[in-house]
Amino acid sequence: MTVKTIPSAAVGRLAVKAAAKQTKRTKWIYAFGNGKADGDVGMKNLLGGKGAGLAEMSRLGLPVPPGFTVTTEVCTIFNKQLGAYPPELESDVNTAITVIEKITGARFGDPSCPLLVSVRSGARASMPGMMDTVLNLGLNDETVNGLASRSGDMRFAFDSYRRFIQMFGDVVMGVSHKSFEEILENQKLDLGVTLDTDLSAEDWKSVIVDYKANIRNLTGEDFPQDPKTQLWDAIGAVFRSWMNGRAITYRKLNNIPHDWGTAVNVQAMVFGNMGEDSATGVAFTRNPSTGENTLYGEYLVNAQGEDVVAGIRTPQQLTIAGKQASNSTLPSMEESMPEVFQELQVVRYRLESHYRDLQDIEFTVQRGKLYMLQTRVGKRTANAALKVACDMVAEGLITKDQAVLRIDPVSLNQLLHPTLDPRAKRQLLAKGLPASPGAACGRIVFTADEAERLAHAGEKVILCRGETSPEDIHGMHAAQGIMTTRGGMTSHAAVVARGMGRPCVAGASQIMIDYETRMMRVSDTVLREGDILTLDGGTGEVLSGRVATIEPKLSGDFSRLMSWADARRRMGVLTNADTPSDCRKAVELGAEGVGLCRTEHMFFETGRIVAVREMILANTVEGRRAALEKVLPMQRSDFAEIFKIMGERPVTIRLLDPPLHEFLPHGEAELLEVAEAAGTEVETVRARVVKLDEVNPMLGHRGCRVGVTYPEIYEMQVRAILQAAAEVAESEGRPVEAEIMVPFVAMAGEVKVLEELITRVADEVLGPNGTGGVKYRIGTMIELPRAALAAGKIAKHAKFFSFGTNDLTQTAMGLSRDDAAGFLPTYEERGLVGRDPFVTIDRDGVGELIRMAVLRGRETRPDLKLCICGEHGGDPDSVEFCHEVGLDYVSCSPYRVPIARLAAAQAAIREMA
Amino acid sequence: MTVKTIPSAAVGRLAVKAAAKQTKRTKWIYAFGNGKADGDVGMKNLLGGKGAGLAEMSRLGLPVPPGFTVTTEVCTIFNKQLGAYPPELESDVNTAITVIEKITGARFGDPSCPLLVSVRSGARASMPGMMDTVLNLGLNDETVNGLASRSGDMRFAFDSYRRFIQMFGDVVMGVSHKSFEEILENQKLDLGVTLDTDLSAEDWKSVIVDYKANIRNLTGEDFPQDPKTQLWDAIGAVFRSWMNGRAITYRKLNNIPHDWGTAVNVQAMVFGNMGEDSATGVAFTRNPSTGENTLYGEYLVNAQGEDVVAGIRTPQQLTIAGKQASNSTLPSMEESMPEVFQELQVVRYRLESHYRDLQDIEFTVQRGKLYMLQTRVGKRTANAALKVACDMVAEGLITKDQAVLRIDPVSLNQLLHPTLDPRAKRQLLAKGLPASPGAACGRIVFTADEAERLAHAGEKVILCRGETSPEDIHGMHAAQGIMTTRGGMTSHAAVVARGMGRPCVAGASQIMIDYETRMMRVSDTVLREGDILTLDGGTGEVLSGRVATIEPKLSGDFSRLMSWADARRRMGVLTNADTPSDCRKAVELGAEGVGLCRTEHMFFETGRIVAVREMILANTVEGRRAALEKVLPMQRSDFAEIFKIMGERPVTIRLLDPPLHEFLPHGEAELLEVAEAAGTEVETVRARVVKLDEVNPMLGHRGCRVGVTYPEIYEMQVRAILQAAAEVAESEGRPVEAEIMVPFVAMAGEVKVLEELITRVADEVLGPNGTGGVKYRIGTMIELPRAALAAGKIAKHAKFFSFGTNDLTQTAMGLSRDDAAGFLPTYEERGLVGRDPFVTIDRDGVGELIRMAVLRGRETRPDLKLCICGEHGGDPDSVEFCHEVGLDYVSCSPYRVPIARLAAAQAAIREMA
Repeated sequence: MTVKTIPSAAVGRLAVKAAAKQTKRTKWIYAFGNGKADGDVGMKNLLGGKGAGLAEMSRLGLPVPPGFTVTTEVCTIFNKQLGAYPPELESDVNTAITVIEKITGARFGDPSCPLLVSVRSGARASMPGMMDTVLNLGLNDETVNGLASRSGDMRFAFDSYRRFIQMFGDVVMGVSHKSFEEILENQKLDLGVTLDTDLSAEDWKSVIVDYKANIRNLTGEDFPQDPKTQLWDAIGAVFRSWMNGRAITYRKLNNIPHDWGTAVNVQAMVFGNMGEDSATGVAFTRNPSTGENTLYGEYLVNAQGEDVVAGIRTPQQLTIAGKQASNSTLPSMEESMPEVFQELQVVRYRLESHYRDLQDIEFTVQRGKLYMLQTRVGKRTANAALKVACDMVAEGLITKDQAVLRIDPVSLNQLLHPTLDPRAKRQLLAKGLPASPGAACGRIVFTADEAERLAHAGEKVILCRGETSPEDIHGMHAAQGIMTTRGGMTSHAAVVARGMGRPCVAGASQIMIDYETRMMRVSDTVLREGDILTLDGGTGEVLSGRVATIEPKLSGDFSRLMSWADARRRMGVLTNADTPSDCRKAVELGAEGVGLCRTEHMFFETGRIVAVREMILANTVEGRRAALEKVLPMQRSDFAEIFKIMGERPVTIRLLDPPLHEFLPHGEAELLEVAEAAGTEVETVRARVVKLDEVNPMLGHRGCRVGVTYPEIYEMQVRAILQAAAEVAESEGRPVEAEIMVPFVAMAGEVKVLEELITRVADEVLGPNGTGGVKYRIGTMIELPRAALAAGKIAKHAKFFSFGTNDLTQTAMGLSRDDAAGFLPTYEERGLVGRDPFVTIDRDGVGELIRMAVLRGRETRPDLKLCICGEHGGDPDSVEFCHEVGLDYVSCSPYRVPIARLAAAQAAIREMA
Repeated sequence: MTVKTIPSAAVGRLAVKAAAKQTKRTKWIYAFGNGKADGDVGMKNLLGGKGAGLAEMSRLGLPVPPGFTVTTEVCTIFNKQLGAYPPELESDVNTAITVIEKITGARFGDPSCPLLVSVRSGARASMPGMMDTVLNLGLNDETVNGLASRSGDMRFAFDSYRRFIQMFGDVVMGVSHKSFEEILENQKLDLGVTLDTDLSAEDWKSVIVDYKANIRNLTGEDFPQDPKTQLWDAIGAVFRSWMNGRAITYRKLNNIPHDWGTAVNVQAMVFGNMGEDSATGVAFTRNPSTGENTLYGEYLVNAQGEDVVAGIRTPQQLTIAGKQASNSTLPSMEESMPEVFQELQVVRYRLESHYRDLQDIEFTVQRGKLYMLQTRVGKRTANAALKVACDMVAEGLITKDQAVLRIDPVSLNQLLHPTLDPRAKRQLLAKGLPASPGAACGRIVFTADEAERLAHAGEKVILCRGETSPEDIHGMHAAQGIMTTRGGMTSHAAVVARGMGRPCVAGASQIMIDYETRMMRVSDTVLREGDILTLDGGTGEVLSGRVATIEPKLSGDFSRLMSWADARRRMGVLTNADTPSDCRKAVELGAEGVGLCRTEHMFFETGRIVAVREMILANTVEGRRAALEKVLPMQRSDFAEIFKIMGERPVTIRLLDPPLHEFLPHGEAELLEVAEAAGTEVETVRARVVKLDEVNPMLGHRGCRVGVTYPEIYEMQVRAILQAAAEVAESEGRPVEAEIMVPFVAMAGEVKVLEELITRVADEVLGPNGTGGVKYRIGTMIELPRAALAAGKIAKHAKFFSFGTNDLTQTAMGLSRDDAAGFLPTYEERGLVGRDPFVTIDRDGVGELIRMAVLRGRETRPDLKLCICGEHGGDPDSVEFCHEVGLDYVSCSPYRVPIARLAAAQAAIREMA
């Protein structure tokens, strides 16, 4: 491909004259329309989702206005070379326009029968509202008259023209939307009217004059009259919009690579605003909230497409059922346009049987004729995804494996978290649309920035807005839930919240927000920023104060799909759980054992921390032993309870890991308290605190280093574990499997020394021949690079490894999780790291160390049991990695257990494919 | 080998009846004497140094009293199995005793002609005074009379007997030396005498009664009369002494593995205390301080061997020259025993021509007859080592390569550090013997514990003692220098200090130390603990206060040997130097360039730190740029000066590495000062300090992460470097080679981004075609495990790697150097780490990462230049590792440059062998 850099003045326009010799000509343009198409649904990377969908619908013979797609490759060239196009592009576009002209019978710039087109972005992945769109392109001072005469509606024509100028001014020429809105407001004030519909054709003509002057004033340039100039400018603007701030943020949040680029779709205009027999709408082929197998969507009569998505007018339901469900008084399309509705139902069946998945479609009705403008795989709630997948298996559309692959493991989060307790007292404040399910509770904030600020400070917040826009993405992400006072189920807020898995109530129109005074009002109730609000995204209720929650009840579809998943996965799924309640929850969610029980959390409980501190403050082994004697029975009963809950499932207990200073107080008052409890001087305590303090606690005196230097601590823990195991094996008359795990190992010698210690204590507790009921094994964490390298030697003394990928990431990358916030965002922005390496495993670095450890460990001990227990164990990508490198188990927090089960199954299925 | 555990009551005695069938019989005992020997010098591991030396001397026909060696393997069995011996040992010992009896004509326990033996330890490596010795064994209430009649000296016989009881009581039965000394003191008080020599045979008999009662009182057991029992008890005590605390400490300090074990040498007694024609002495075949080729040593007339080493009596010189040099008034052996002296000279020639090295020998003269009791390679000062090596090359005894291999690189430290300025004013306090060369200055301390405590707190201390003992080792190691008021050139203090390379003045007898009041006095001058003292170990001067020092003048032998070394080594040696004075020193010591110039040290200089802090406090890029503009000319002039000094040698400059918060103040007053200087509120400064503070600064926002997030800082530094280079290339009319090094890289992307930045700034500064005179290269530190793994990708953007092994050790092992003190000593004690991994590279872990990085880096870029610049670059073992893995350079601090040169040469020579 040859590209040419265009001087900055002409950025976005075509480099016309560049000569390029190519042996094989790259195709930059893919046409569609009239039941044919150059492209198809398989070309999403090249044509974007919208372009591929339009091509596919055209091939299917669905009513698609003719047009063409400029490929994502052009975008990449354009953005890399600061506004250069491939030299052949101009003639390609001209040819494609001619084809549209032939099909429509209209001509670009023809004053009597002008061709009008839309110019829309369309990336590989859907990025709702992120990039720019221009409609009605081709209108100018002359062609507007042609539109008027052909539509027979002068007012419509000039309204369309002023909309075009406004969009073009905003999107292409950088003139603020607000400046146009002000002109319009002034016009209405002058005329003494309130609604746009009150303006006549003449009024619009006057607005147009002001609009053009506004552009001239603010840019020093005239609004271009030449349709070709308009077109090239609009294409350039769409390509540039790929790199705007909100698009970049969206891609970051959704893990979309910046180098994918967007395609541009140029398509003959159809008008949903040509009167009462015209409409525009958005629909899903099944209900995206519940998965119910019924057409689901909204439409607006006499409106242009963007009006629905923008959520400014509250739209009407497509079906009678939908109308009833939403208590709407406006007529459904099923009632008001029955023929079009039937046509839409046919389209729905065609698309579903073709795509075998729930589709999200956009359409326009122009004077009673249906036109399809988009189809794509529809976003859905996790519940809906489960139901759709299970239903489609039952309908014979897809296989069980396909169903398993179709569920985004992370989306299960939505199903697993608590919902509002129906019996809890609720103070209903207002009711809106149940736009995204789940319960959320937090402090009211009114701006995205404030949401982000407070969330970073650890507060849970609810973002409350009139409506949301792409600028609010970061705040929506930071919030627990989103509430809007305007907009419908397909408004920006609703779509984005569902995608993020955030509960959302949309269009709670009784609420009035006053951004100025930072308060909101429902009749005479006033809520201020910082007050607590609860949302029920499943019912649309907005509640004052905090409301109790209950555990979710999982649907039959959930267990059906999980059973298909479990049948496929090779890896076992354990849980990281420190408390009996965590263990119970994990078992309920399918955990096959405990992969990581952190004993130090038990140390912090009231009544224990005193003894623990006494132990740390003791200067002698005897003093420490005396204090540990007090801790022993407490730890023993903790372990016993966990062994009881876990039944015969293995329980892996990690010996003390954090440095001792973590248990000591730092404030004056607390120091005094500890000194009194320990019967010593506050100065002694302070001195000990200072002595134990570390410059880099992460790399400090912790883990097995504590066990080597203060063996009495580990002895107590091992004793407590095995006494508890023996007790439970005895009382329940069944075997207990305890896995004792040594943390923060750097070299084999450490494991050897502690293996001796553990074995010695075990012989003491269980007797030299062991107690039949108690099976214990000794293993290690692998969480230091050196341990990964020494895995072969370590495996001589360890029967299992558990990869502590949090610490392994910190040490391999030299990256303190607590301190990375200062630069990691910059790194993500500059593409230096893909995803946060603390969320998704760094395959090249940390991953290679794991791979090495697996190989070396298994070489020494072929039946070495391998697990991961860092937080990566609940991240689907990382779970796939674990499957690939041959781990036996992943261990994750209880709520992530189903996610890991599903991800493990997907990895196994993908491997078989 | 079959071993048998002996019941604790009988620990140390023989397991008699155990039956063991062995196909091949292990030899536990090696006899020597009468011009023959079972062993030889090659069996040091099995026989220990002393045993091998005795065997070899016996084979050479030198006069060695007959005896046998119990091997180190027996020690290992004994200490592992808590006091068990191989079953065949008893009969082997009996046989060996019979052989001695035959040679000497005396018999064990024979009342008329008793065989007396010494029982001495002897490990593979010399551990002077660390383990126990028993002399005169075989004496009892009956045999003492035989000794009396055969020696014709009743007094001698009973003195010998009481000495034996005292040693045996102390070493074998655990009765304190002090309790015996008190009995002796009381006896002297009762008799009204002051010297031991004033006691008659009858007096000794009375002492013996009290000694035996003392043992009975304190242990409940009788002093054993049976010589066989005495022998087995003594052998067990020597084996046990291998594991005593001071021996363990010594081995730790000297990197001697605990599993080597000691041998036990049982040898017929000869007596140096049989009158004025008897003597005992210690000698070196050449002067161990200067290397001069002359017999050098001391002797004591009418004394037993231990009296010399203990340093209690001040001994006489062997030669007339030695007597003159030490201003002694006592007759030399050359004068008083000319025949014996000539015999000793013959022995000296025999040993040197046989061993081809300086030997350290022990001998006893019994009634005019010379007996050799020990020979071993003699410890020597670095200067002596150089002279001996060079002289022996000249004498044709060894080759140049052997000479190079013979110098311990670390010992060069002694030559390179400053000595006292002869023109500086000195306030002479006292004069002792020049026991170990070099100048030392520090605060006076009187106990080893205090020395260690203050040294850990960062103080420099001089340990002042009457005499030192093995219990003081840790304090001697912690001290800058050692001063004793008693003892000679071969006293404990002198020998150990020379071995450690610590300056030492021994026997400064004018000084009186009062431990009680913690002061010392010379006539009417009083010095208290904490006062400053200076020692000149080269002259024996003890000086009050601090005395100016001068740089050492290196001898011709030094440059001769270094030239032989340089001719052999493959690796280049660079220096870590941040200042012009460091650079000058390094060039003088042979550095071939700068391998690491840390720019941050320049940031701290007065006048700069204000601008640097201003930069950090700025909230905008512009603010930072403005502050950096002020720093630029300062850095430029620093670099220019270094380029001038280094001539055409390459200079590697590391871009800013530490996190920014390291430059901010923490105290209130300083905060205020900075706020005023920056014209901002103190709260703003405090907030910034808090915001930048890190939990784990080692893994924080540092190194290239600063360069990526605040590119303007690195831009300034690169500009300063290249402007300086261009300036010097221009003014000096010669090329300048600047290597720009990016620190703390974790992934290739970082290097790519910074390569772009550096190249851009370079193009700006040097012009697009570069300035002919300036050659610059971009490289990286490899100091994170992930960087080592990603070396292949990183090498695409880096022309050189420098291994930052300090940080690589910290991250690979998860070991914060600042925090490791809490457990590393325990680890060393338990043998979990060999040497401190921050001193000697951890070959298995860190080493493997380096190996991988070397392989992967060179695969991408075959001419990749590889260097190490961690502190390991000056450690001989680590230098050898660098040679093995194929690095091109090592870089170390200026004073370590010769050490690295020598170590690199030794590695190359060993490789050729």
